[in-house]
Amino acid sequence: MDTVGRHYIVEASGCSPEVISKVEMVEQIMSQAAEVAGVQIWAISFHRFNPTGVSGVVVISESHLSVHTWPETGYVALDIFTCGQDARPTVAVEHALRELGAKTAHITEVTRGLHEGDQVYFHSIVTWEEDMPGVNGAKNTAALGISPAAGRAKAASKAATARRRKRKS
Amino acid sequence: MDTVGRHYIVEASGCSPEVISKVEMVEQIMSQAAEVAGVQIWAISFHRFNPTGVSGVVVISESHLSVHTWPETGYVALDIFTCGQDARPTVAVEHALRELGAKTAHITEVTRGLHEGDQVYFHSIVTWEEDMPGVNGAKNTAALGISPAAGRAKAASKAATARRRKRKS
Repeated sequence: MDTVGRHYIVEASGCSPEVISKVEMVEQIMSQAAEVAGVQIWAISFHRFNPTGVSGVVVISESHLSVHTWPETGYVALDIFTCGQDARPTVAVEHALRELGAKTAHITEVTRGLHEGDQVYFHSIVTWEEDMPGVNGAKNTAALGISPAAGRAKAASKAATARRRKRKS
Repeated sequence: MDTVGRHYIVEASGCSPEVISKVEMVEQIMSQAAEVAGVQIWAISFHRFNPTGVSGVVVISESHLSVHTWPETGYVALDIFTCGQDARPTVAVEHALRELGAKTAHITEVTRGLHEGDQVYFHSIVTWEEDMPGVNGAKNTAALGISPAAGRAKAASKAATARRRKRKS
């Protein structure tokens, strides 16, 4: 079974308090995100906590989607982690950001389960920024094309790390 | 409500196939990890999939623990994300790695929900390696003290990124 997965770690800012305070709406958005990613849902668990906020997880094959919301400040901590060549996690990230009403997003793509040999695994990392359509001059058309390399990405804070250490042989 | 959280993204290698193929054992390890972290469990969802492997999530206040296992190669993708000053996520990481039988771990600490002003949020990142006690000469005593700065950490691949972009004012 392939171990490689793509995990998007997203701090979403400027989200709609009306949306992210409602557990039913957040659950629907994340379930739809799993659907557009083309992954099979195994379990869904969403909760509202006091005084405000929603926490929820969608368990999918070998990975998961999660969301934690702070309606009072419009902040959402979003994770979308999928395995397999057929999954479309960036479409899911884009769907979630749009439906949550995010204005900007700070995104790290973690490529997980990379094999360096001898059954030792590591991950690689790229970080960038996205302005959502209509925000800070970003084009208000079509798909975002979530990607650190996409021309439409407002990539101004980009950092890539790779495993540099060689294991002792 | 404080938005800052600590999220440990871990590729664990050399884990025990006997342990990580059993959904009951993996669920118990992750539930115990939440307990030693000192966080309140809201929901637990664990599943075994074919031909082998376990996926599971523990939902806690404003954050989560998750695990995905590949028994055939001894690989585990582990996430431990906690909010609040009182949580002890590194103790949970250490517990999980020990109980899963990991030999080495590639760890990224993501500090989430950092506020740069104007209700815009970002995360910072540090990556390092850990050899578990008894492996590659690591001391076989006491706690690991999971930390990029700890003297016992075999930190050979370390990278830190910080938000460099200043928002348009």
